[in-house]
Amino acid sequence: MATVTTTPSGRWEAVEHLVTSLRGGDVRALARAISLVENDAPAAAAVLSACFPYTGQALRIGLTGAPGSGKSTLVDRLAAYYRAEQETVGIVAVDPTSPFTGGAILGDRIRMQSHHADPGLYIRSMATRGFLGGLASTTADIASVVEASGKTRLLIETVGVGQDEVDIVRLADVTVVVLVPGLGDDVQSIKAGILEIADIFVVNKSDREGADRVEREIRAMQSLGGHGKGWVPPVVRTVATTGEGTAALAEAIDRCVDSFRKAGKLEEKRTAAWQARLVEMIRQKLVRELVRHRLGRAELESHARAVAARQEDPYRLVDGLVRGLLDLHRDDGSV
Amino acid sequence: MATVTTTPSGRWEAVEHLVTSLRGGDVRALARAISLVENDAPAAAAVLSACFPYTGQALRIGLTGAPGSGKSTLVDRLAAYYRAEQETVGIVAVDPTSPFTGGAILGDRIRMQSHHADPGLYIRSMATRGFLGGLASTTADIASVVEASGKTRLLIETVGVGQDEVDIVRLADVTVVVLVPGLGDDVQSIKAGILEIADIFVVNKSDREGADRVEREIRAMQSLGGHGKGWVPPVVRTVATTGEGTAALAEAIDRCVDSFRKAGKLEEKRTAAWQARLVEMIRQKLVRELVRHRLGRAELESHARAVAARQEDPYRLVDGLVRGLLDLHRDDGSV
Repeated sequence: MATVTTTPSGRWEAVEHLVTSLRGGDVRALARAISLVENDAPAAAAVLSACFPYTGQALRIGLTGAPGSGKSTLVDRLAAYYRAEQETVGIVAVDPTSPFTGGAILGDRIRMQSHHADPGLYIRSMATRGFLGGLASTTADIASVVEASGKTRLLIETVGVGQDEVDIVRLADVTVVVLVPGLGDDVQSIKAGILEIADIFVVNKSDREGADRVEREIRAMQSLGGHGKGWVPPVVRTVATTGEGTAALAEAIDRCVDSFRKAGKLEEKRTAAWQARLVEMIRQKLVRELVRHRLGRAELESHARAVAARQEDPYRLVDGLVRGLLDLHRDDGSV
Repeated sequence: MATVTTTPSGRWEAVEHLVTSLRGGDVRALARAISLVENDAPAAAAVLSACFPYTGQALRIGLTGAPGSGKSTLVDRLAAYYRAEQETVGIVAVDPTSPFTGGAILGDRIRMQSHHADPGLYIRSMATRGFLGGLASTTADIASVVEASGKTRLLIETVGVGQDEVDIVRLADVTVVVLVPGLGDDVQSIKAGILEIADIFVVNKSDREGADRVEREIRAMQSLGGHGKGWVPPVVRTVATTGEGTAALAEAIDRCVDSFRKAGKLEEKRTAAWQARLVEMIRQKLVRELVRHRLGRAELESHARAVAARQEDPYRLVDGLVRGLLDLHRDDGSV
């Protein structure tokens, strides 16, 4: 495995080597590059910069649904379908790892080891515990590294239970929302808000009772408007455990992408996604600069202690700290 | 209702008036102040600064649990218990409003209107859809405004399904994790990670079959260690619908706070919470400064378009933009 050293020139050489290796099909180099990005290592920006020219061509498909909706099995089916079509596939599965749902996706992934011998398929699960912000942006970055390894289809899978997960699928070209009959309103009440993010609805486990009702509810929501002219999200029925409906889903995705491309909406979506990512990248870099130049961990903790004891007003403190960062740079010109 | 104008001196006068009113028991002023903070209005920092001296005394209790665990009913019971003890109570309920769980807490809250005539109880639900980061920090800020209105117990309630929600309860003095028998592993598999955030476990709906098993699983986890010496999270059984166990929960919370206070852990937790909030506040302010001084919406969009078209490397772009902000301030000294 390539080691990434910390000396500036050595680091760049190692990154070049790493990216050349992962582009040549070295799975361990790919895993290493992803880890650098996931852990926000010093070399992360260099890795992403080196991968960037090889991205932007793959189709990014986001899939989200409640726990228990059979999403992972569906993703496996779709991946197998694309492989049969000679497409190469990367799967990035975001595992919210909350105390309540922790590890569900990772567990599913063990099953996927059956694909392990296929060099045209790469699977990566991301844990999110303790993640410091920017989860959606980092997921998109990791998908870019996977794409740079030569994948033409990127399947980005999340458990759709929080804003983070919604943000993640929003960065995709096409968003698939997976519903199932009979999960109960507590877990999966179909809300108007779902219209905003879904480009395609899947009713999975559609051999179960209640599939008609789920589809009817989606149609009823759609009739209330919201989407206006253009693409109307279709409802695709699947039974992921048997593979039924996989081809219909793949076809719906193709039609959706065609429609978006013709209407200029694909470019629009990708621009909006980059806008969100740029803001997040700027945010992270600014905070890092502040901490590096002005505010050590110990100092931050001492401020926090003073604030907790009501000796310092945090709102004025932050104002002063931010001014401080800007002044520092006026004084010594360092960046 | 006090209007908050945008002229600097007028704004401050209005904020002073607003905070004086809410401290005097004016519920509409309180609601208005919270809205300013929630919407990140220009006056938000002034409102928080004016409330700050009146905070830091109330006990903050975070409660989290899977959808359907009966958390809201339990929070109502606890609030009623504290009211009977002559404590004043603020409830801040964070509704993740995902497509799948949307509105559950808000729905529950309608029932709470029965308390409406009680000036010693204030309830606020926060929607999180479209929220731009810093949810945990903003929730803590809103709790501070509620505290400034004279509340001695703050109950912060979230549906514990994502990292956001975990972050929210981590900012509390005491964290209560609510479990129920029979929800199934898909929704509520008890994981070792839960040990990290729970100070108290509640097994709600404990009249149902399986309560013993849930408690046994918690005990088994605890025996694997993790918490070390000091406070060992107790397991309290409740039936929120009947009120059974509410007094035992309140007592467990008191014992927990006493234990934390004696061990210096309460101060430690509050310091850690402020540290996280300070970092988030700095982050937001820096980004705002950047956008205000250097980067308009239109410019940002044009960069995003160039990046999406692979005409610009985002990683170098962000580097340049951040340097640009710092250089700008070196040139003209404006902040």
